[in-house]
Amino acid sequence: MPVNLIAPDASALAPIAGVELGVAQAGIRKAGRTDTLVMRFAPDTTAAGVFTRNRFCAAPVRVCREHLAATGGRLRALVVNTGNANAGTGARGLADARRTCERLAAELGVDVAEVLPFSTGVILEPLPVERLEAALVPAIANLAPDNWARAAEAIMTTDTVPKAASRTGRTEAGGFAVTGISKGAGMIRPNMATMLGFIATDAAVPPALLAKWVREAADASFNRITVDGDTSTNDSLVLAATGAGELVLADESSPGAGELRDAIFEVATTLAQAIVRDGEGATKFITIQVEGAGHADEAAAVAYAIAHSPLVKTACFASDPNLGRLLCAIGYAGIEDLDVERVDVWLDDVHVATAGGVHPAYREADGQRVMKQAEITIRVALGRGGFSTTVWTCDLSHDYVSINADYRS
Amino acid sequence: MPVNLIAPDASALAPIAGVELGVAQAGIRKAGRTDTLVMRFAPDTTAAGVFTRNRFCAAPVRVCREHLAATGGRLRALVVNTGNANAGTGARGLADARRTCERLAAELGVDVAEVLPFSTGVILEPLPVERLEAALVPAIANLAPDNWARAAEAIMTTDTVPKAASRTGRTEAGGFAVTGISKGAGMIRPNMATMLGFIATDAAVPPALLAKWVREAADASFNRITVDGDTSTNDSLVLAATGAGELVLADESSPGAGELRDAIFEVATTLAQAIVRDGEGATKFITIQVEGAGHADEAAAVAYAIAHSPLVKTACFASDPNLGRLLCAIGYAGIEDLDVERVDVWLDDVHVATAGGVHPAYREADGQRVMKQAEITIRVALGRGGFSTTVWTCDLSHDYVSINADYRS
Repeated sequence: MPVNLIAPDASALAPIAGVELGVAQAGIRKAGRTDTLVMRFAPDTTAAGVFTRNRFCAAPVRVCREHLAATGGRLRALVVNTGNANAGTGARGLADARRTCERLAAELGVDVAEVLPFSTGVILEPLPVERLEAALVPAIANLAPDNWARAAEAIMTTDTVPKAASRTGRTEAGGFAVTGISKGAGMIRPNMATMLGFIATDAAVPPALLAKWVREAADASFNRITVDGDTSTNDSLVLAATGAGELVLADESSPGAGELRDAIFEVATTLAQAIVRDGEGATKFITIQVEGAGHADEAAAVAYAIAHSPLVKTACFASDPNLGRLLCAIGYAGIEDLDVERVDVWLDDVHVATAGGVHPAYREADGQRVMKQAEITIRVALGRGGFSTTVWTCDLSHDYVSINADYRS
Repeated sequence: MPVNLIAPDASALAPIAGVELGVAQAGIRKAGRTDTLVMRFAPDTTAAGVFTRNRFCAAPVRVCREHLAATGGRLRALVVNTGNANAGTGARGLADARRTCERLAAELGVDVAEVLPFSTGVILEPLPVERLEAALVPAIANLAPDNWARAAEAIMTTDTVPKAASRTGRTEAGGFAVTGISKGAGMIRPNMATMLGFIATDAAVPPALLAKWVREAADASFNRITVDGDTSTNDSLVLAATGAGELVLADESSPGAGELRDAIFEVATTLAQAIVRDGEGATKFITIQVEGAGHADEAAAVAYAIAHSPLVKTACFASDPNLGRLLCAIGYAGIEDLDVERVDVWLDDVHVATAGGVHPAYREADGQRVMKQAEITIRVALGRGGFSTTVWTCDLSHDYVSINADYRS
């Protein structure tokens, strides 16, 4: 059951001038399922991406990196298939990804390096590339600007809810729109971009600024979520700017840049949080705030120690204010000289721990009240300095085990 | 269901000359449960320990460190209670641990610094120290050398099977016996000693040599296991040598030292593996061997990336030879310059992956056969150097979630 997450209303997703989306059924893994997405972009579209750091990165990730480097950040089309990740597929997988780009480039009359391929699904199995190629034509046939909701649905794997978000704004330099979609529910771990995320704006943004923003946006959103600590082979986030709208940016100091950046970050954060809300088996959405750290790495270490602790996650599933497991995770996060006497912990507004133990005023009923909520904030103050971070995660439930024990069968 | 682990037969556990064990019901957490263990040691007993590195270490762990430092490694008695970890209990917890030692020292007529306290169970709740004190007298009343099996039972928490192991040997310098017990099933993570482990020998061993051996034995056994990646606040392993038997060692080159060391390591490894075999919800015992690493840290990083991956662990639960999840975990283990083309993976004797993908000769049926076994060896060759390591873990099942979602309720 996703946590406070519903399918996006198609009417709430602003079309982006210069972007069209089309979907099709390739039968990659199962027949009768929409598993292919094509996005077409206007001629002057710029783009930038961040990709998995997994050493077993997928073939399409390698091709994306090559193509973005070759064009200096230009994008005319992208193609996404679900059902097969085209990862661990060696030379054949690389050839399959290139061939898919070539075919789409030919169909659309664009340069092959301006096409980016994405795959998600089962690893280590050859991509049924003929079926994917055959699906490109019907996908192109239904290209339309108002297809964002269908696109969000087309890229789902173990997701139970399609994920999309949209913001529009007006600035002194003109209006703009930002719309994005994402997918992912398991094999989610921070610091490696995301599963798949595609965000587009109708503003005109130079490639260098897009590259900066996509890194920063990923760091503030997709790199701050974790479901199970497993980093996918295919994580990719792409940010595209069509330049087909009113707002034109020369650089980050241009009028309207701040508003657009904020909108992009909001869309990225909403999409990233949606992945956690729909985390495999999730019943709780958990925000972990760590403050008072001596440096950024300390804050992250404590936040992820909590976020990855199976004991904390099962306690959240059970709505159990098990403070011992929280303090225990803080204690093994790797801060050698941590003074536990200076550590404070809150569950939402309830001050639960201080000075190395339970807060004197803490009552179990108060902790219980917070833990029963669908959304829980765990706040930790380390008392060591001025660094902080926020990480979003979900609980660990029976359904996580069921989903992942049954995934291939 | 523990994996190939049965309760030790009391007759198979060699008594250790100079060690007596007694148990009692203190009603620490539940009435009618044997929850207290006292061990008494002969006057010349030496001892050494390794303890949790969790910064929220429990009060008894602090007292153990103090006492061993104060005596230079002498031990006359130890007391263990289950049901309450006396961790995160501040000054009162420390006072409670000291008071327990004082009372036991008075009852036995030994120096308080020669008494070590151990607690395991719920964190952050005050130790019912009066009840524990009251149980010392009945525990002392049934002190006996052949009580190892009852002792193993007395220290269980979420364990489903008591854990004990024993070895005897003869050397040119005399015979010896080694017997040990351990407990632990969840909140188990390597590199921090273990939950609780107590190993005794009747040989005479100088404290410095015991201290060396307990570190080395922990590194080869308890520090190579992981159930859920959570490091307890109370992990402790103590090795005691009574000197009441035949074998007398001056140092590591003394006759018989090699045989005794081997026996201690075997007992430690058996006890450590028993914790994994009885891991919370475990249905599979998994040995992860990593070889060909460029240095020891690399080997450990890859082994633990696999051992901690919820996706690998659920695949093991499902008997699913999901090679993609294995390669994925290797890929995110943090070796930045890993050449995936040089990585080979085996499931037992089945060569499943090579050159960045599936081995050409691999057949799914062969992987399936291995994964269906109760004991699985995952072997990874990195092709980078001569370092290797072995880690033991278990799968992640529905029962793990059930056990930890229900533990406090």
